[in-house]
Amino acid sequence: MRPCFAPLRRPKPWHQGPPDLIPKGVLIPQQKQPRAIIPSSPQSEDATSSKYNTFSFWFGPPKPRPSCSSLGQISKHLSEKYYLMSTLNNSTNIFWQECPVRKVERQKLLNQKGCVVWITGLSGSGKSTLACSLSRELHSKGKLSYILDGDNLRHGLNKDLGFKAEDRAENIRRVGEVAKLFSDAGLICIASLISPYRKDRDACRAMLPDASFIEVFMNMPLELCESRDAKGLYKLARAGKIKGFTGIDDPYERPLNCEIEIEQKDGVCPKPAALAGQVVSYLEEKGFLQVE
Amino acid sequence: MRPCFAPLRRPKPWHQGPPDLIPKGVLIPQQKQPRAIIPSSPQSEDATSSKYNTFSFWFGPPKPRPSCSSLGQISKHLSEKYYLMSTLNNSTNIFWQECPVRKVERQKLLNQKGCVVWITGLSGSGKSTLACSLSRELHSKGKLSYILDGDNLRHGLNKDLGFKAEDRAENIRRVGEVAKLFSDAGLICIASLISPYRKDRDACRAMLPDASFIEVFMNMPLELCESRDAKGLYKLARAGKIKGFTGIDDPYERPLNCEIEIEQKDGVCPKPAALAGQVVSYLEEKGFLQVE
Repeated sequence: MRPCFAPLRRPKPWHQGPPDLIPKGVLIPQQKQPRAIIPSSPQSEDATSSKYNTFSFWFGPPKPRPSCSSLGQISKHLSEKYYLMSTLNNSTNIFWQECPVRKVERQKLLNQKGCVVWITGLSGSGKSTLACSLSRELHSKGKLSYILDGDNLRHGLNKDLGFKAEDRAENIRRVGEVAKLFSDAGLICIASLISPYRKDRDACRAMLPDASFIEVFMNMPLELCESRDAKGLYKLARAGKIKGFTGIDDPYERPLNCEIEIEQKDGVCPKPAALAGQVVSYLEEKGFLQVE
Repeated sequence: MRPCFAPLRRPKPWHQGPPDLIPKGVLIPQQKQPRAIIPSSPQSEDATSSKYNTFSFWFGPPKPRPSCSSLGQISKHLSEKYYLMSTLNNSTNIFWQECPVRKVERQKLLNQKGCVVWITGLSGSGKSTLACSLSRELHSKGKLSYILDGDNLRHGLNKDLGFKAEDRAENIRRVGEVAKLFSDAGLICIASLISPYRKDRDACRAMLPDASFIEVFMNMPLELCESRDAKGLYKLARAGKIKGFTGIDDPYERPLNCEIEIEQKDGVCPKPAALAGQVVSYLEEKGFLQVE
């Protein structure tokens, strides 16, 4: 029943996922994981202005709290939960809420492992075609996937964003964050976006647990993508009517270490089902399509 | 093989979901649903400056396109897809991408119907407790749910937002958009946020298909919530160290027509399992826990 105090001085950066419950450098034996994390004397501290918040770690059994007859079980339940208070960019007094149904339980229910298949490439390189084909193939195997399509999200979640550099970065960041939630929910999340800049893609990769970000590069020559021009956008870009179009007057940075690269073979594109098969084989091999 | 042209003058507002494939006022017999929607002569139109875009609707069999030997099956597949081009606030040249694995197929796989359980109420009213308990209860029935916790999302997707009025509205909007995606994926999405303003909650309701937004009001007296004060925030708010705290110096607008209201009974809060049971019964009764 002896409390142990340790300061948490640096919240984890956003792209590295939920904040650590235990600050780095504090070694705690596994049997001594804290039962609760409580802001240190919030009543005596100005949490809205302090640069750093500090926390108390409670290693004993659930800490007794002043009881209130009307609280009933809820209070007891709440007092047994883990809380973490941190100071983020614009948000103070935000607590991290742990839930007893975790990713591992959802994965067991679905008999698959949550991950993100991130399809990147030029407009017209076949990203959506692969995404749909992959989704169909996974569905036929009884696996649950969901497509986050860059264009579709710009009708909803990202409708406030344009195509300025910072808007593009924010667009990718939000898709990355949502993909992370879907992966955490146990789904195979298929994100299909041009996502032209390496650092934005890498930031999304860094959000996810090791090996559960699978980058698929649609490595198709610009000439081919432009000749397809299913949306008529290359023509507009060449005519100068769209500015900052990837591949024309804005760069596409090729992945350096992607997990899967899709290319033409002898000048012919593999069929969509074959492309999907390549990704499904990868997922199978890495154990994403079942749980042990 | 005779094409039929009809203009689409007003894209659907963002909160009403994906844009209609068929504009209002254009009556089309069911057997004549268009096979493709193609921007009208994009090469001859300045899509970046035109206020309205127009579209061609193709009612014949898949429209033949100029073939390219290297395109193979992908081109054929692409030419058979539905495209829709629209002009949004900041985003031009955005196409809507339809995918052959739809919500109904995912629901069949999961044997449940996607929906959003939106839990609203004061800080300390037991929203997270209900969310966790509900998630456990659904999991025990083999149903897939996922919790979107307002505080947790402020560590990720919404980390750039503070507590100004417009940031709060944007916070709710984004959670609503993500909840909609989870619902579309077939999950029972449990959103747990104070969400104090009626119009923000109603905007989220309007995003979703009829009856699949289930608003749960944790109707607990302020005194009870404040006496719990598990996060120590009421104390800070009373001391004036947090400004704009819901229930203290910022209003909470009670729902007018929520689907479920949770209250004390004879001055005692029902146990978390009982609360969850109340929501599960509702979901069962409304047919969300199975597909026909």
